[in-house]
Amino acid sequence: METIRSLQNAAVRRIVSLRRSRKRRAAGVVLVDGPRESLRAIEAGLKLTAFYEIEPKSSETSGPPDMPEQAVARQYAIDAGVHRWVTAEVFRKIAYTASTDRCVAEFVAPDDSLEQLLGRSSWNDGLILVLDRVEKPGNLGAVFRSADAAGVSAVLLSDCPSDRFNPNAIRGSLGAVFTVPSASGSELQIEAFLKTHGYRVAAMRVEGSRPLFDSDLRGKVAVVLGSEADGLADRWAGDSIDPVALPMAGHVDSLNVSVSAAIVAFEAVRQRSNG
Amino acid sequence: METIRSLQNAAVRRIVSLRRSRKRRAAGVVLVDGPRESLRAIEAGLKLTAFYEIEPKSSETSGPPDMPEQAVARQYAIDAGVHRWVTAEVFRKIAYTASTDRCVAEFVAPDDSLEQLLGRSSWNDGLILVLDRVEKPGNLGAVFRSADAAGVSAVLLSDCPSDRFNPNAIRGSLGAVFTVPSASGSELQIEAFLKTHGYRVAAMRVEGSRPLFDSDLRGKVAVVLGSEADGLADRWAGDSIDPVALPMAGHVDSLNVSVSAAIVAFEAVRQRSNG
Repeated sequence: METIRSLQNAAVRRIVSLRRSRKRRAAGVVLVDGPRESLRAIEAGLKLTAFYEIEPKSSETSGPPDMPEQAVARQYAIDAGVHRWVTAEVFRKIAYTASTDRCVAEFVAPDDSLEQLLGRSSWNDGLILVLDRVEKPGNLGAVFRSADAAGVSAVLLSDCPSDRFNPNAIRGSLGAVFTVPSASGSELQIEAFLKTHGYRVAAMRVEGSRPLFDSDLRGKVAVVLGSEADGLADRWAGDSIDPVALPMAGHVDSLNVSVSAAIVAFEAVRQRSNG
Repeated sequence: METIRSLQNAAVRRIVSLRRSRKRRAAGVVLVDGPRESLRAIEAGLKLTAFYEIEPKSSETSGPPDMPEQAVARQYAIDAGVHRWVTAEVFRKIAYTASTDRCVAEFVAPDDSLEQLLGRSSWNDGLILVLDRVEKPGNLGAVFRSADAAGVSAVLLSDCPSDRFNPNAIRGSLGAVFTVPSASGSELQIEAFLKTHGYRVAAMRVEGSRPLFDSDLRGKVAVVLGSEADGLADRWAGDSIDPVALPMAGHVDSLNVSVSAAIVAFEAVRQRSNG
């Protein structure tokens, strides 16, 4: 196909419009920036619908060398009939960070409902992390990165204003937002889902009645973590919810939510590896 | 004292110059932005040598309400004879984030040598974290925040290009860079110091021969963590150094250094609380 040269091209205008997260979510689309992250999304089974790269200059047989991931993602896009070259000017218009990203990919957003989790082959009795009203996409991404490393069953987003496909979440996760099962919902929906499926629920608080290290994190258990600013306040505080906390020795009174999530996830790994 | 109104004032030019980290370090000075962080530094015993705030407008009896920390820090500065009001224009010139910081404080930088650690009342057989060539100030700050919460003995910076008093490290730490004992040195200096004082040394690697959770983190033990980009490569790899790793279950092959540090620090808390 021809190189896209016009900033008025419909595909260019589409990507520019989809950079607004509301538009992106309404369209049911995920935009992915950079070869490594694009390949992670392809490998995770997301449906690729467009893939844009800067065309090589005809005067140079070798431009900047491809990253291995870039060549693999390109071949996949070509085979799928969705690869387009664009000019450097067009790329600057559609890229999130034009100086470093090398490519932009559009995917169909995966089903984000709680119910789809049940059909996944990875659905088991592993730890579930619930993030309550976490705002910063960088924190979301960092939680997914640790969740992937610790092998958690799922990360559930409870009334979070951002989604996991915000560009900063994708980048901060190193692509783990595509590999870790996830769903979004309201507090009530998620609490009902966990109850229906037999999960015990613990909520991390600044002051909890039980130290985390005395909690049983084996089997079907979900741990809720709040945003840094507000903590959990009155949410996730019912009778059936076990308040837990990390012992805090020093002057600071809270940890970053991504740090707390990693400590919880790897404490679960430790307990489960001990049988 | 009179309000500073001129951008050419010597104090103004001094702060502007000290914004360059090389100048700041050569002068043996720490600049602290914001009331909360300034008060943390005062409380930690750093010597305050200057404190600048925007003067209240005479037309309004009440400007934006003081944060409690701001009133306390101001009184301390007035008592110490180092408080100066500045105009909004001057503040924009000397502040790191003029729109939110409210004040700028200058302190004498504390002794950063390994030897000063021995004289501290908090020196005991707690865990030591060693950060090897960690570059991002935000990561340094995040490690100090977790280190404070977990009550580690000290954070040692091994050949780190940034220092803990970079503005982003101070902010990210919530002031914990002032409260957690710390020193800087080369790999050789720190390794010799730990050996002299009877510390066992473990180094976190992507692939370590021993899972972290099987390591004994009680007593005099130091754990070395590398930068995200390079890991530890050939450094911290001698016969006397125990390679350890977290089990990694997923697709990502590394954790953020501040996340790894927090997992190590709280695993030490867990082991030590079990006697």
